Amino acid sequence: MSPTPARIIAVDTHDIRFPTSRELDGSDAMNPDPDYSAAYVVLRTDAADGHEGHGFAFTIGRGNEVQVAAIDALRGHLLGRDLDGLCADPATLNRDLIGDSQLRWLGPEKGVMHMAIGAVVNAVWDLAAKRAGLPLWRLLAEAEPEWLVGQIDFRYLTDALTPEEALALLRRGREGAGERTARLLERGYPAYTTSPGWLGYDDDKLSRLAARAVADGFTQIKLKVGADLDDDIRRCRVARSVIGPHVRMAVDANQRWDVGEAIRWTKALAAFDPYWIEEPTSPDDILGHAAIRRAVAPVKVATGEHVHNRVVFKQLLQAGALDVVQIDAARVGGVPENLAILLLAAKFGVPVCPHAGGVGLCELVQHLSMFDYVAVTGTTEDRVIEYVDHLHDHFLDPVVIRQGHYTAPTAPGFSAALRPETLARYTYPGGAFWAADLDATKKGHPA
Amino acid sequence: MSPTPARIIAVDTHDIRFPTSRELDGSDAMNPDPDYSAAYVVLRTDAADGHEGHGFAFTIGRGNEVQVAAIDALRGHLLGRDLDGLCADPATLNRDLIGDSQLRWLGPEKGVMHMAIGAVVNAVWDLAAKRAGLPLWRLLAEAEPEWLVGQIDFRYLTDALTPEEALALLRRGREGAGERTARLLERGYPAYTTSPGWLGYDDDKLSRLAARAVADGFTQIKLKVGADLDDDIRRCRVARSVIGPHVRMAVDANQRWDVGEAIRWTKALAAFDPYWIEEPTSPDDILGHAAIRRAVAPVKVATGEHVHNRVVFKQLLQAGALDVVQIDAARVGGVPENLAILLLAAKFGVPVCPHAGGVGLCELVQHLSMFDYVAVTGTTEDRVIEYVDHLHDHFLDPVVIRQGHYTAPTAPGFSAALRPETLARYTYPGGAFWAADLDATKKGHPA
Repeated sequence: MSPTPARIIAVDTHDIRFPTSRELDGSDAMNPDPDYSAAYVVLRTDAADGHEGHGFAFTIGRGNEVQVAAIDALRGHLLGRDLDGLCADPATLNRDLIGDSQLRWLGPEKGVMHMAIGAVVNAVWDLAAKRAGLPLWRLLAEAEPEWLVGQIDFRYLTDALTPEEALALLRRGREGAGERTARLLERGYPAYTTSPGWLGYDDDKLSRLAARAVADGFTQIKLKVGADLDDDIRRCRVARSVIGPHVRMAVDANQRWDVGEAIRWTKALAAFDPYWIEEPTSPDDILGHAAIRRAVAPVKVATGEHVHNRVVFKQLLQAGALDVVQIDAARVGGVPENLAILLLAAKFGVPVCPHAGGVGLCELVQHLSMFDYVAVTGTTEDRVIEYVDHLHDHFLDPVVIRQGHYTAPTAPGFSAALRPETLARYTYPGGAFWAADLDATKKGHPA
Repeated sequence: MSPTPARIIAVDTHDIRFPTSRELDGSDAMNPDPDYSAAYVVLRTDAADGHEGHGFAFTIGRGNEVQVAAIDALRGHLLGRDLDGLCADPATLNRDLIGDSQLRWLGPEKGVMHMAIGAVVNAVWDLAAKRAGLPLWRLLAEAEPEWLVGQIDFRYLTDALTPEEALALLRRGREGAGERTARLLERGYPAYTTSPGWLGYDDDKLSRLAARAVADGFTQIKLKVGADLDDDIRRCRVARSVIGPHVRMAVDANQRWDVGEAIRWTKALAAFDPYWIEEPTSPDDILGHAAIRRAVAPVKVATGEHVHNRVVFKQLLQAGALDVVQIDAARVGGVPENLAILLLAAKFGVPVCPHAGGVGLCELVQHLSMFDYVAVTGTTEDRVIEYVDHLHDHFLDPVVIRQGHYTAPTAPGFSAALRPETLARYTYPGGAFWAADLDATKKGHPA
């Protein structure tokens, strides 16, 4: 008698919020007071190995409960799924989630519902990697190219990238992959840091953190800009004087400007040699980014953390609107959609420098860049992963930065699991921190 | 002593679902079995006039609870608002909703959160129109151009449309508005009907309903296509043979195709003289629509019901990707964003033919097209509002169609209110219909 096949038996969701707004960590021109949050999902199974799949959507506070509700809406697609089949071919789940004809109306493939799909799909890949005993980057890098291509949804992409072209890219990417894996394990993957540049920090703090970044081995930092031009000029001057001429300094406007304003403002900062201008305008404005890029060269144009799916990335590349593709591990529909975006970028020859920070975005996205290096583009030239030194302690397998590089993870999975004590403390509103905080607020402001 | 100013005192939300999937009403190539639904919001006030503001997001079933949760997340921005101030300048609320820096992360300006903003903003305009004693189209058409321009968020638009250009369009639109109002009240606004063309209907039903549409005075019908080319060819032949050569026949693929496929499929149907191909591919694919339009002319290209905001409409127009702009009253951020889109379309000289159907979309969008006719473009040439004969009985002020035309509403407000008995019957899952249905399901399938 064969044993009953193992199945997904529970989809647990958690509303996790950190009170980051109180330190102005993460403050920028559009997001003055974020409370970094995660709509967190845990897939539990009845397999004897005890592995769970962990995933999350990152949000910045209010509305995290809507994001949790969106993940809850997907539960019916997960419960009872056969684990062996799911991990052997996660694309079957993808098709069901993206293709749910009623849920599709709420996007399609954008916003809260699409981020929910991303959280769940990433949790499945976490589980698959744990069951394979491999860190996700390695599972991807060692997978058969044919299988990887089968994981990707090419709908709406074939005018720019066909499955055949993707397969050719992946086959070529396998050449020399073993050597690159060894090099990656030895040296890590280059990072840049945004920690000095939050808009809420004063010049002293900016100066001190910029100097520390250089001392720590980072070769690129990033400054938030876009609220006030005089302030930006002063802060760019301060940062450049601290880091010297050879360290790259990116600037990030977080979608603050219209097209004309973006061009004028970026040119006004050009004297400080910004490496790229990030999110100069609406993430939906493909043609606007193309116009800005034409006008501000040689300053590069970067965007992606709010680009909601592969169709928009496709067009940004088709329109010549970008110098840098900034994938985000938790905005689009999870690992397979990011595979599509990495392959699009490779085809168009545009480097990928992921967005990270937030809650666990560094932990996730490092796997995608490492896969890109080992098994797609084969290079880290002009490629850096964003690094922000917040909230890593809450993860069971946090990123490790050495000399400005991400160390390659070796633990099986996608590095997505939060510590149990974090769940207990930062669940909103019932966790220990928030319960005490809401209680204190009540006492401090008697009705 | 002056009286206490009236305020918003409650934001009631309702999850309303109709079991439309059982008749295959609304079936198309991407949405085979929709249960037309509304995340419905009622703003209650303590004003003596007793007026309420009604609004909703339309969905097609599963996930309507997520849409309700998103509206709930906006409640804090509404409760306690001074009514006189809000109705005199609704833009103050818009800025707070769109600009909520934490909620913004969940879009920005797309998907579930943006539709929630649209529902709430539309409810405010419904309330404002009721307090003014005017149907919304008339409130808009008689408003001062300066005030209307002040209601529009021009962020990300100024490279295509400036406030000054918008003002000039609205001032020019006022010339002759009185005569057009009289003509509108007399003749109504032209409609086309999708009722014959649902994909789930057999050829007999298609044929019978197409003949009835012509007899009812419609000069355009629409057929759903995209699931099977041989079926589409047969159905187009049937429809064309019934309606003759002079009635326009649009076809609608509901995003089914990639770019190349859209071109091939549309050309294969060209023998039946389709007037437009609607949603040939992803609503996010601006460059794809432009490529399709270049290839399939003289068949026109139409899209918009899933275009998530003004920034995407701007680019569709800039790229020459569209012959027909299909606004939707409940997808974008409500009345003010649709004003921006109407003005963009007017500037680019592209006619607006709204998407409607669903739950109450006809009721809402007629006001926007009538405003466009009276006070923006001054014409109904090549302009038709979609009409689908479903679910109107559930509204207190349903659309009235005469001889293929929408009759201009005269009751104050935005025609958005559902009947109280509908709320009682179709609230999910506790309303009378669903409670009985779930009970019968349980009894029919004992565990």
